[in-house]
Amino acid sequence: MEVTYKRRINYYETDKMGVVHHANYLRYFEEARIYFLDEAGLSYKEIEAAGVIMPVLGVDISYKASLDFDDVLFLKTSLSYVKGAKAAFSYEGYNQEGKLVCRGASTHGFVKKDFKPTILKKDFPQIFEILSKAVMPD
Amino acid sequence: MEVTYKRRINYYETDKMGVVHHANYLRYFEEARIYFLDEAGLSYKEIEAAGVIMPVLGVDISYKASLDFDDVLFLKTSLSYVKGAKAAFSYEGYNQEGKLVCRGASTHGFVKKDFKPTILKKDFPQIFEILSKAVMPD
Amino acid sequence: MEVTYKRRINYYETDKMGVVHHANYLRYFEEARIYFLDEAGLSYKEIEAAGVIMPVLGVDISYKASLDFDDVLFLKTSLSYVKGAKAAFSYEGYNQEGKLVCRGASTHGFVKKDFKPTILKKDFPQIFEILSKAVMPD
Amino acid sequence: MEVTYKRRINYYETDKMGVVHHANYLRYFEEARIYFLDEAGLSYKEIEAAGVIMPVLGVDISYKASLDFDDVLFLKTSLSYVKGAKAAFSYEGYNQEGKLVCRGASTHGFVKKDFKPTILKKDFPQIFEILSKAVMPD
Repeated sequence: MEVTYKRRINYYETDKMGVVHHANYLRYFEEARIYFLDEAGLSYKEIEAAGVIMPVLGVDISYKASLDFDDVLFLKTSLSYVKGAKAAFSYEGYNQEGKLVCRGASTHGFVKKDFKPTILKKDFPQIFEILSKAVMPD
Repeated sequence: MEVTYKRRINYYETDKMGVVHHANYLRYFEEARIYFLDEAGLSYKEIEAAGVIMPVLGVDISYKASLDFDDVLFLKTSLSYVKGAKAAFSYEGYNQEGKLVCRGASTHGFVKKDFKPTILKKDFPQIFEILSKAVMPD
Repeated sequence: MEVTYKRRINYYETDKMGVVHHANYLRYFEEARIYFLDEAGLSYKEIEAAGVIMPVLGVDISYKASLDFDDVLFLKTSLSYVKGAKAAFSYEGYNQEGKLVCRGASTHGFVKKDFKPTILKKDFPQIFEILSKAVMPD
Repeated sequence: MEVTYKRRINYYETDKMGVVHHANYLRYFEEARIYFLDEAGLSYKEIEAAGVIMPVLGVDISYKASLDFDDVLFLKTSLSYVKGAKAAFSYEGYNQEGKLVCRGASTHGFVKKDFKPTILKKDFPQIFEILSKAVMPD
């Protein structure tokens, strides 16, 4: 499964270089991830209500072109794997003209609200099953 | 009691106008408020640990001059009043050349973690006493 | 003319109180303002390209209820006046259940890129005319 | 040369997980980088005034432990290399108890304000020389 999350760039997301500040892309990735989960049939709000949180363990991002205010970002988002207490997402961003603007990946842990790891398959089999089906085949 | 909170402006706080985005001033006010409480002998971290939070009920701000990256903001901060379940702070910001950059005020409620109001004087007399002493005389 | 700008709340816009951080509302107001201009037939990107910027001179906001991640904010937005080198917008925010969450107003200057004021009616009559028609009658 | 940039965590930098939102670390890296340049005798403000900007080409970060409001972050920052139109920085973050909280690296291009690459050694030999001396030996 791959989803494309669409997002207009806000004025306040630019900096004095005249383009979007690079830290904001991690926020766009988060928005896209939550949209991906929505599309997979999982509400992140409900995941947290069930007692699981998904903190970010690592992010890797390359910036290929800049984004300006009023541009539209299209983020192709997929789930690379889910195993044990971890998952990873991949992102590829394009602007409204189809130009590649960024590529990235994020890894996540599944933990309880006290940040103790949870083995998703065992502790939350329903969430695990939905996520497993949403994993992008190689 | 009046404190002056000093703060260097970060690059990421600017926008494509080339100056600090106006929403960031509310964050500077928050930093200054927490510094004020520190100086009054109250740690906001400890206030929250004790079970009280201070959400913002309202903010009023006038922007008088812009701030650029690498500028230094000096925020004169005082506590206008504490009564019942409310308090109000006042702010006056200057840059490194002594030029007035902003004036503002914020009002806050004292509530428990479930956002139910608490009468500070009755429920947390120690916090109330310290704050009362820190109020700026007219 | 009044527009209603609709906006889902992002996870990263919350803070450890569990609700949206108050500074973000100024960003929502900005998004709503730009949407208002779009609907009035003015692109803020083109306004800036024409050489006019609209820095915020002041903001006044009351917080009536909190917003959580995944809530939907509906911001009723109108233009209160345009005169000389100034304009003012009004905002009223509701959540997905129709509950009032905030009320606010912002005033703006019309300036050139060097922050020198411009008399819109004289210097940019087309922009002035469109804005004048969009002003909310009393 | 290695510098340690010290930074208190702000309340507004947390999210509803109760800890600092992961995107903020890229902002801390930026603050640390600018502090590094200061310590090396280069003001980033002056670098930009001279006509060079240093957009981020990529970031790689691992989160090892969370940071809370009021924690103090110590970011050990060094310059890994400067060559042609590129440079890379490394970061290692610790909290006030000496616990590792993050590790990361960022790569940067040297470009003119129109985002065209500049060969620093040829076009800005003084900046190149100072940076070269500040590179961390292997």
